[in-house]
Amino acid sequence: MHGLLTDLYELTMSAGYYSAGLADQVATFELSVRRLPKNRDFLVAAGLAQAVEYVSGLGFSAAAIEYLRGLVQFSRAKPEFFEYLRGLRFTGDLFAVPEGTPVFAGEPILIVRAPLVQAQILETVLLSAIAFQTLIATKAMRIAEAAAGRAVVEFGTRRAHTPEAGVLAGRAAYIGGCIGTSNTLTGFRYGVPVYGTAAHSWVQAFPEEIEAQRRLQELLGPNTIYLVDTYDTLEGARKAASLGLPLWGVRLDSGDLALLSRGVRGVLDAAGLHDAKIMASGDLNEYKIRELVSGGAPIDAFGVGTELATSADAPALGAVYKLVEIGQRCTMKFSPEKETLPGAKQIYRSAECDLLALARESLDTGGEPLLRPVIYGGRLLESLPNVHSSRNYAAQAIARRPRTGRVERSPGLAALVASLKKGAEATTA
Amino acid sequence: MHGLLTDLYELTMSAGYYSAGLADQVATFELSVRRLPKNRDFLVAAGLAQAVEYVSGLGFSAAAIEYLRGLVQFSRAKPEFFEYLRGLRFTGDLFAVPEGTPVFAGEPILIVRAPLVQAQILETVLLSAIAFQTLIATKAMRIAEAAAGRAVVEFGTRRAHTPEAGVLAGRAAYIGGCIGTSNTLTGFRYGVPVYGTAAHSWVQAFPEEIEAQRRLQELLGPNTIYLVDTYDTLEGARKAASLGLPLWGVRLDSGDLALLSRGVRGVLDAAGLHDAKIMASGDLNEYKIRELVSGGAPIDAFGVGTELATSADAPALGAVYKLVEIGQRCTMKFSPEKETLPGAKQIYRSAECDLLALARESLDTGGEPLLRPVIYGGRLLESLPNVHSSRNYAAQAIARRPRTGRVERSPGLAALVASLKKGAEATTA
Repeated sequence: MHGLLTDLYELTMSAGYYSAGLADQVATFELSVRRLPKNRDFLVAAGLAQAVEYVSGLGFSAAAIEYLRGLVQFSRAKPEFFEYLRGLRFTGDLFAVPEGTPVFAGEPILIVRAPLVQAQILETVLLSAIAFQTLIATKAMRIAEAAAGRAVVEFGTRRAHTPEAGVLAGRAAYIGGCIGTSNTLTGFRYGVPVYGTAAHSWVQAFPEEIEAQRRLQELLGPNTIYLVDTYDTLEGARKAASLGLPLWGVRLDSGDLALLSRGVRGVLDAAGLHDAKIMASGDLNEYKIRELVSGGAPIDAFGVGTELATSADAPALGAVYKLVEIGQRCTMKFSPEKETLPGAKQIYRSAECDLLALARESLDTGGEPLLRPVIYGGRLLESLPNVHSSRNYAAQAIARRPRTGRVERSPGLAALVASLKKGAEATTA
Repeated sequence: MHGLLTDLYELTMSAGYYSAGLADQVATFELSVRRLPKNRDFLVAAGLAQAVEYVSGLGFSAAAIEYLRGLVQFSRAKPEFFEYLRGLRFTGDLFAVPEGTPVFAGEPILIVRAPLVQAQILETVLLSAIAFQTLIATKAMRIAEAAAGRAVVEFGTRRAHTPEAGVLAGRAAYIGGCIGTSNTLTGFRYGVPVYGTAAHSWVQAFPEEIEAQRRLQELLGPNTIYLVDTYDTLEGARKAASLGLPLWGVRLDSGDLALLSRGVRGVLDAAGLHDAKIMASGDLNEYKIRELVSGGAPIDAFGVGTELATSADAPALGAVYKLVEIGQRCTMKFSPEKETLPGAKQIYRSAECDLLALARESLDTGGEPLLRPVIYGGRLLESLPNVHSSRNYAAQAIARRPRTGRVERSPGLAALVASLKKGAEATTA
């Protein structure tokens, strides 16, 4: 990916680090989420594969460097800095929790230890790549949970923030618990199962609804799902039922889904189509699905678009990427409500709670260390799990997550925070 | 762009249209927004350039076709269909309102008239491409308006839904009224002005805050903006002031911005730095900015990230892409609350209101027709305006938008709706 895909200040700071002789000073940055968004008890981490792809491909083209040279912000930068950028590749280390891991506020999801300039430039893309897929995997987990065993398919590319976001929303939703996506490219690129049969325009393209249904059945056989609400839902269902098998079922996309699903179920059963299923879609979310399920609506599967692919009730994550060590020095930030904890860390997970400790601390917690090395000395240690493995891992890890949701601090971390705060008070006093 | 970047059902329908002999039937689809999101009186259309780029590049690779052949949904498709896909290019017409045009609910932003399969496949990406940038341009317009002449810079890539969404958020925010973006690639690709100096990590990378500030000044001279809240805002501002000129100003990123901006203004003035400016950032939106401005906070510029790059209070647009004509037949959809209006249309704008009319109607309204041909017979008619022209156009068009926000229907459109509804009643009776 393009080295310019970053906030300008990452690059002006890099020029400054270079001038100050700090460019290759080893620095550690941690990516974490300050506070959980509303309605979320934990997050399902996702996006690591895209983060790693970006880090591995970091570099600056000649055209990119020419562009920077022309900016007023670089008019006083050292000429050798641009040569330095031209040769820049990622040579550091990256640690992360596996995709699908449930994480709590303040826990590092990803850690970069690298020469300062490299680590700094990565900030913008790492935040966006991890935060977005984490939002979507988390929302998918919530929706799948509400569906209580019924299948959920991700339908939201058209409402995603750019088509590429749609492709990755499909990926993250699968990791979080959906059975697949409508996005064909997500299927092609990542092997996520793809679903879909026909839209309203299909029904409208034929002069008669029944002809549209017959044609779909010819094409899709037992995979046929009629969309029955283009003109009148019950009438559409009656026409579908009159065609008999082969048929997977019908889809409702508007109106009172609790009421209509009962009516349509009656129509299908009356025609002897007891195995034909009902899928529902149309501005659904975990709350509406929970209501439909608990109300006993005879719906077998859900398609969820807008609310899932944009995480509509919590469309952003307060993810931050903060310097915690540079050289031998641990750093922290005291800004009101934006404090960060110093030192490179590890998370130890046990059945009860998580322990946040300094990576260098030697502890005998019995807890499972969550952060694992992914890139070391610029090299990918082993290929990352595919989406199917990550989805399985997520299901297990979510079921086994610490019951209390508590994150405790190790003695070493608590002592470091106290000593840095004291130092700051001494400085400002 | 990749032909597979679409919902699977666009492709299964295409296979069905092909089997039914409808693949090359000329169809017209319209992209519009059903209802405006909350807090929005109108939208600022954006994203046309990316839509056109996608339409012009539509095609299927051999690998894409092999993938489709392997899917169960295509097991009964005609073998010739895959040959048809292999040769597919866009050969139709595309009409659109220029980027920067204010539009109301129900008005077509973009119209495709093309062989049915081509027009159908485009649906998913066109919706996502137009809706996302329209959301962001609209939010930027609202924020710039609240800033009442003070500069607003888009800062949100790290919170955008994928890094690519960040690049395009910067583009759309500029069209909507921001003076620029922090995203360097947005600057490189589209010529949008880029801004940025240093983050908290810069301050932390040096043992002493004053050294970090001095180094920044050396690097940036009169473009220097010190971030003063890493440890203590007023103390940070005092250190900055002690260094004197050259300096653009300081940035506050946390705490009570109304209070702190006054304190910092006092520090700068006391040092004789009356021309030094104050920039504020940190979870801002149009409401907080309006409050700061009306409260007289001495803030000269705003940086807005999360809320702008995700349009956080309205993160999705109910955009739809609906078949309105096929062959000689006009179509409409009767689904409850999801009705669509039939026939290819034109919008005529006058000072008072818009008139939505059938494109084939001959009217003498005196209003300005908003939809213009962009691609005709598969060829781009002329290069699209650059972002600077679109931004200027937006400012003028927003100022001159119809005062009432009313969208009326022409006699021809009203008559067509009535006749189709009557026909539907006759059919279902």
